[in-house]
Amino acid sequence: MTGGGAPRSLTVVPVTGMGEIGPGDDLARIIARHGDITAGDVVVVTQKIVSKAEGRLVEVDPDDPADRVRLVEKEAVRVLRRRGDLLITETRHGFVCANSGVDFSNVASGWAALLPEDPDRSARRIRDGLRAETGVEVGVIVSDTFGRTWRQGVTDIAIGCAGVAGVVDLRGTTDALGRELQATEVCVADEIASAAELVMGKASGIPVAVVRGLDPQWLRRGSVADEIIRPAAEDLFR
Amino acid sequence: MTGGGAPRSLTVVPVTGMGEIGPGDDLARIIARHGDITAGDVVVVTQKIVSKAEGRLVEVDPDDPADRVRLVEKEAVRVLRRRGDLLITETRHGFVCANSGVDFSNVASGWAALLPEDPDRSARRIRDGLRAETGVEVGVIVSDTFGRTWRQGVTDIAIGCAGVAGVVDLRGTTDALGRELQATEVCVADEIASAAELVMGKASGIPVAVVRGLDPQWLRRGSVADEIIRPAAEDLFR
Repeated sequence: MTGGGAPRSLTVVPVTGMGEIGPGDDLARIIARHGDITAGDVVVVTQKIVSKAEGRLVEVDPDDPADRVRLVEKEAVRVLRRRGDLLITETRHGFVCANSGVDFSNVASGWAALLPEDPDRSARRIRDGLRAETGVEVGVIVSDTFGRTWRQGVTDIAIGCAGVAGVVDLRGTTDALGRELQATEVCVADEIASAAELVMGKASGIPVAVVRGLDPQWLRRGSVADEIIRPAAEDLFR
Repeated sequence: MTGGGAPRSLTVVPVTGMGEIGPGDDLARIIARHGDITAGDVVVVTQKIVSKAEGRLVEVDPDDPADRVRLVEKEAVRVLRRRGDLLITETRHGFVCANSGVDFSNVASGWAALLPEDPDRSARRIRDGLRAETGVEVGVIVSDTFGRTWRQGVTDIAIGCAGVAGVVDLRGTTDALGRELQATEVCVADEIASAAELVMGKASGIPVAVVRGLDPQWLRRGSVADEIIRPAAEDLFR
């Protein structure tokens, strides 16, 4: 509760029954039809259905690992590390992730899903669409599943956001003892994406969750590109 | 929902009114007195009050940055990067983090809080204590706030856990289209810690949150040390 006021509880509700998403589908309309959405909610949408709706699908030979690697290299601006078929790459968005974020699972055989061209823009479109459908202002996060440098297991993070902060800056605020805070910038967008994943699950195919009860001060203009992607010049490990 | 069954909602409830924690305090008793805890919940406890209760406090000269650096170096087995007063280190637990996890905020002036000696053991003790106090089985996560290599802003992650999985292995399960999953190991402990942080806030001094509605299959023996810390030999960036 950085915004002051009484501590509030959070609820995370999966949106079910949306069915298969394909190119050209109106995601906001489908989400509004199946989800219970009120003002101040943050709607988390997985990259996969965003990429599908935006037609970001390419053919790939399912029997040829080299074909996959070629696609991953094509989607990268830089290959940071290579171990067998796994490439850690930097995408043109500035994401550092496995296989340039290209998704070979939950896509029809012979196809792969690329990351959205501009995930912040994707989030803005869904947010605008939800406003048109429901009349309420919500935040939207497009989430994806990334590994971490020093820790095993993947977690969901934000690759795009709109109407919700990427990072909340607590610089200048004080801790409970009145001293200036040391760790000041909390990436709430990634934490919200992680919370949403807990009700989605990888295997169940639930692609959307609604997070309710967040600090209203976080519901402001936001951008993953501007707030979360670390500029290469400030990076200690690239 | 990796365990099958109907999709469930998640709630995250802050535990308030616990007051200042000091060396020797019985955390489980204090949490049980102030929190509403039922079987199957996961209780997330921030490192700072665990360190305080365990007396992991050392004196440090608040006017001497070099004194801070000396302490951080003493708590590290390796310094990976150095930029001004910021050190990225590997702790004896195997965590790679800023300043060896030493905490200079939310501690009385002239003091710093070190990481618990064995955060998995800390989590087990709290879990055992909560069982004794309440009669119910819960999971416990000890959380801390870490930066990330490629992304700006900090998020809360798990440094210790008990009675809840660190990583859930989905290897061998299939996606919604019946194909084998690509990203298979989800670090649910870190995602739960992140979800909890959303109701704690850095500035508000709420040190505990209760997460309800998790997949019951995740409530099993768990360990951050065994499941989440990436062995240096498997690390592509150290």
